[in-house]
Amino acid sequence: MLVPPEASRCIVVTSLPCGPINEANFNLEMRALRPLEPGEFLVRLHWLSVDPFMVSRLRAEANYTAGVSVGDVMQAYGVGRVEATNSPQYANGDFVTGFFGMREWAIDNGESQVRRIDPALGPVQTALGVFGLAGITAYFGLMEVGAPKRGETVAVSAGVGSVGLLVGKIAAFHGCRTVAIVGSDEKVAAAVTTLGFDAAVNRRSARLDLDLAQACPDGVDVYFDNAGGDLYDSVLQYMNVGGRIIVCGRVASAHLPETKLDVGPRDANAILVKRLRKQGFLATDYACRAPEAIATLAEIIREGGTLPPEDVVDGIDQAPRALVRMLRGDNIGKQLVYIGPEKVT
Amino acid sequence: MLVPPEASRCIVVTSLPCGPINEANFNLEMRALRPLEPGEFLVRLHWLSVDPFMVSRLRAEANYTAGVSVGDVMQAYGVGRVEATNSPQYANGDFVTGFFGMREWAIDNGESQVRRIDPALGPVQTALGVFGLAGITAYFGLMEVGAPKRGETVAVSAGVGSVGLLVGKIAAFHGCRTVAIVGSDEKVAAAVTTLGFDAAVNRRSARLDLDLAQACPDGVDVYFDNAGGDLYDSVLQYMNVGGRIIVCGRVASAHLPETKLDVGPRDANAILVKRLRKQGFLATDYACRAPEAIATLAEIIREGGTLPPEDVVDGIDQAPRALVRMLRGDNIGKQLVYIGPEKVT
Repeated sequence: MLVPPEASRCIVVTSLPCGPINEANFNLEMRALRPLEPGEFLVRLHWLSVDPFMVSRLRAEANYTAGVSVGDVMQAYGVGRVEATNSPQYANGDFVTGFFGMREWAIDNGESQVRRIDPALGPVQTALGVFGLAGITAYFGLMEVGAPKRGETVAVSAGVGSVGLLVGKIAAFHGCRTVAIVGSDEKVAAAVTTLGFDAAVNRRSARLDLDLAQACPDGVDVYFDNAGGDLYDSVLQYMNVGGRIIVCGRVASAHLPETKLDVGPRDANAILVKRLRKQGFLATDYACRAPEAIATLAEIIREGGTLPPEDVVDGIDQAPRALVRMLRGDNIGKQLVYIGPEKVT
Repeated sequence: MLVPPEASRCIVVTSLPCGPINEANFNLEMRALRPLEPGEFLVRLHWLSVDPFMVSRLRAEANYTAGVSVGDVMQAYGVGRVEATNSPQYANGDFVTGFFGMREWAIDNGESQVRRIDPALGPVQTALGVFGLAGITAYFGLMEVGAPKRGETVAVSAGVGSVGLLVGKIAAFHGCRTVAIVGSDEKVAAAVTTLGFDAAVNRRSARLDLDLAQACPDGVDVYFDNAGGDLYDSVLQYMNVGGRIIVCGRVASAHLPETKLDVGPRDANAILVKRLRKQGFLATDYACRAPEAIATLAEIIREGGTLPPEDVVDGIDQAPRALVRMLRGDNIGKQLVYIGPEKVT
C-alpha cells in the first residue's frame, strides 16, 4: 500500500471557455485530503479519461446534467487502486473505475458510478474505453438505436475515435459493411489497414461527396453520428429509405460559443422523403445493461486477437492538453492520461 | 346511368411554380374520352381532394415518387361513381375512390389505388378525408411513430387541417392531452370549442414561446409536425426527454423555391440531450393496413357523434384555388372540391 499524502494534485477549472476549450481554462493545484469517514475509501488514480461530454459540462447552457463551475476540480472518469478503506465493499488493492474527477487521489463512498474492474478482461485502463463508457456507447447506440441488419452499410463519424472504432468492430461483427469518416488521410489509412473498416473517407476532402458515394455504393443504412455539423448534411444525401441516424455526439460543434447558433440546412425534407429515424442517445441510459455490451465486446476482441488502440498522454499536468487534443481529433483510439505512480508505455 | 360525353373537363398543369403555387400554374381544358378497353371502367368524379403532397409533385427536385410535367392533368385523389364498365370488379353505380387526377371523367383499370367505398361509413367524400389518406396519415403517424401513452401531451401543427384535427381526436381517444398549433385566433377558437383540443396556440402570436409553455405545462411528449420551419424550433424547446417527433409534412416550406435551402438552427443538440426520436413518415407505407385505421376512426366518430368538418369549394374550375387556399392554411377541416353532377352543400 502507498502512504497517502496530505494533499492531492488536481486539475481545477479556472475559467469557462468562450469558444474552444484550451489549456488556459485549467490549472494544476493541490487540494487537501481529509481523513476517511465510515463507508469511504481512498483511491490512487492511475488513468484519467478525457471525453467529449466534457465540452457541455464546461458550458453554462442547459444540459442533461449539472456542469462544472470555476474553482471546481474538473470532472472525469478514472481508474485507480484502493489504498485505504473504511468501506465493506472495497478492499485495499482493488482496482476500481468511477467518476472521480481529474485528481491523483480521490475519496469516495462508492456513489460516483464506482465499480470494481474485472482484471480478466484486459489491462485496467480498458475500463475507460472498450469495457467502459466508449464500449457501452458504441454497443447500445448501434444495436438499440441503429438496429443494423446483416449486409447493411454502417457509416460512423469520428470513426477512429474511441467510440467510432468500436462501432466499426461491432457492425462488422454483425455482418455490415463499415465506413469510417475521419479527419485526415493518415486516419483513412489507419481505419482501413489497422482498424478493419471496409472503407474510409476524409471529411476534409475537397471531393467529399464523391468519396462518400464511392465508399457507400449501396448508400448508408445506419449513420452513427459523433460529429454533427456540415458533415451530417453531406451524409444525409446518401441515406437510404428507412435509414437510422444515431445522434451520439457533436464534436463538430464543440468549438462553437454557446451564443452562436449551430445553423444549417434543415433535414425535415430528407427525413420525411426517406422515412429516416433520427434519434438521440446517451450511454448512461443503458448503464444498468453494461454487462451485455461488455460480454459482446470481449467476444469481438477475443476473436480479433488485439485490443483497440489507445492514445496515451503522460502526467496529470497534461490532462488539459489531452482534452484539447482529443477535441481537435488528433488521437487515434481512446485518449487516456496516465497518472499512475510508475510510468508505463 | 349518365351518358358519357366525348370529352372531359380537366385541370392541366401549364407551368411549374417558381415559388408559391398559384392558380396561374393551371388551366381548365377539355380532354377526349376514348372507348373503354377490356378490364376498364368509366368514373364520373363527384369530389376531388387537394393535398399538401401536391407541392412536391410540382417540383423538379428528387422526391419519393414521380412528379407531374407541364401538359399533364394534375394528379389528385377523387371519389366518383362508375357509369360504364368493362371490368368484372367494378359495377355500374359503384362509388369508388382512387388516384384519378383532376378531371370530371376518368377511365381506369383499377390500378390507380382504386377501392370501392363502404357507404355505411358516412358520406362518400369521407373516403378522401377521415376514411382516406388523412385518416391513415393521422392514425399510423401518431400510433406507430409517435406511440403516445395515456396522460402524455401530443402537440400537432396545422392542427385544424384534415390530418391535424384527426391527430387530436385519436390522441384524445387514447387519453392524451391534445394541443393544436394553428395559424389564426379564429382557428384557436375552433380547435378548442368545436374540435375538442385541450388547448390551442396561434403560431403567429408575438408571444409564441409563452403560449406554448402555457398550453403544454408538462412539456410535449409527441409532436406531430405537419409544418416544419421556425415553428419546429419553437416546439423543440418544450419537448420532454424521450419525446417523439413525427415528420409528416412541411407546409411551412411549401412556398420556398427549390433553389433556396430551408435553413435553421440544427436540432442535434436537443435531439441528443433529450434523447428525442425524430422520424419521417409516409402514409402510403401503411396503405395495406388501412382497415385498422378506418376501424378505429369509425369508432371515434361513432362515440363523438359528429363527422370531422369539411371545407368545400364548388366546381372543377375552382380546384386550383382550393389547392392554393389549403396551402395558405385558410381551411378548417378537409379541403374538398365538389365537382358532381348536382350541387350539394
